Amino acid sequence: MPPMPVPADAATRVLGIDPGSRVAGYGVVEEKGSRITAVGFGVVKPPQTADANLRLKYIFEAFAEIIAEYNPGEIAVENVFFAVNARSALVLGQARGAALLPALIAGLPVHEYSALQVKKALVGAGRAEKSQVALMVCRILGMREIPKPEDVTDALGVAVCHLHSAPLRRRLARA
Amino acid sequence: MPPMPVPADAATRVLGIDPGSRVAGYGVVEEKGSRITAVGFGVVKPPQTADANLRLKYIFEAFAEIIAEYNPGEIAVENVFFAVNARSALVLGQARGAALLPALIAGLPVHEYSALQVKKALVGAGRAEKSQVALMVCRILGMREIPKPEDVTDALGVAVCHLHSAPLRRRLARA
Repeated sequence: MPPMPVPADAATRVLGIDPGSRVAGYGVVEEKGSRITAVGFGVVKPPQTADANLRLKYIFEAFAEIIAEYNPGEIAVENVFFAVNARSALVLGQARGAALLPALIAGLPVHEYSALQVKKALVGAGRAEKSQVALMVCRILGMREIPKPEDVTDALGVAVCHLHSAPLRRRLARA
Repeated sequence: MPPMPVPADAATRVLGIDPGSRVAGYGVVEEKGSRITAVGFGVVKPPQTADANLRLKYIFEAFAEIIAEYNPGEIAVENVFFAVNARSALVLGQARGAALLPALIAGLPVHEYSALQVKKALVGAGRAEKSQVALMVCRILGMREIPKPEDVTDALGVAVCHLHSAPLRRRLARA
């Protein structure tokens, strides 16, 4: 049988990730036509053990399960360029790698956005407060309540940001 | 059939890892009785692409292959607490996570040592030069030539350090 052509209105499912070593947020959003909805979201909270390596393993396995459950076609993640110090940056880097690797191994495209890009895409202003971003995420996705904690709205936010900028990227790729 | 008891002279095989985002070293050493030998060593060199995520995937898959090939029982890695800046610490952290995750997923114990501990275990002095460490690694393992690059001797060094400190740890655990 020849491969099925992808219909023009095929759903695009994006997994947004807000990496962290203590709490990582995830949010799966889907675009059908002009509507974007939240398919699932939550946090990955590794056991608060002193063993950083056990936490890494936990994060990796949790994101592998999330990908198996939601089967996203693309990944969106906020890129991080700041940290309190080198030590915490190292810990955050490890956690970020552990969260992204299941997607990378599965061959899923990973798109990175700066906090500024996310704010501009959602609120229209780069200086927007975090709470404004959370509120806009909630409105765009037609949710009645703002999900908690902030890691969840951050993850949903970067996923929505990706969908908002995807048509532009496709147009640029065509031009 | 009941499980075979592990004989007292069973070989202990340790994979030493020197993580890095551009070059990561690995060294597999084996202890039989009082002799330690190098079973294999080399470097993992991800393609020099601008895409840091592709490099992460490469590192993860390379270490998964190394573990499948050498089947080590334990992992030794130097812990890193320094970096030029937060940005490079984040990149190093990601690479470190990618190198360790195949071992963590396989359930292998990961032992961490500071640079000071490695130097003391091998040369007897914490202020030893890197070249002295490389020379001692070479002597202990009965190698005719010092393997290059430094990432390899660093990886072999932390593996040897682990074997040297393992008997002490076992004694302490018993006491």
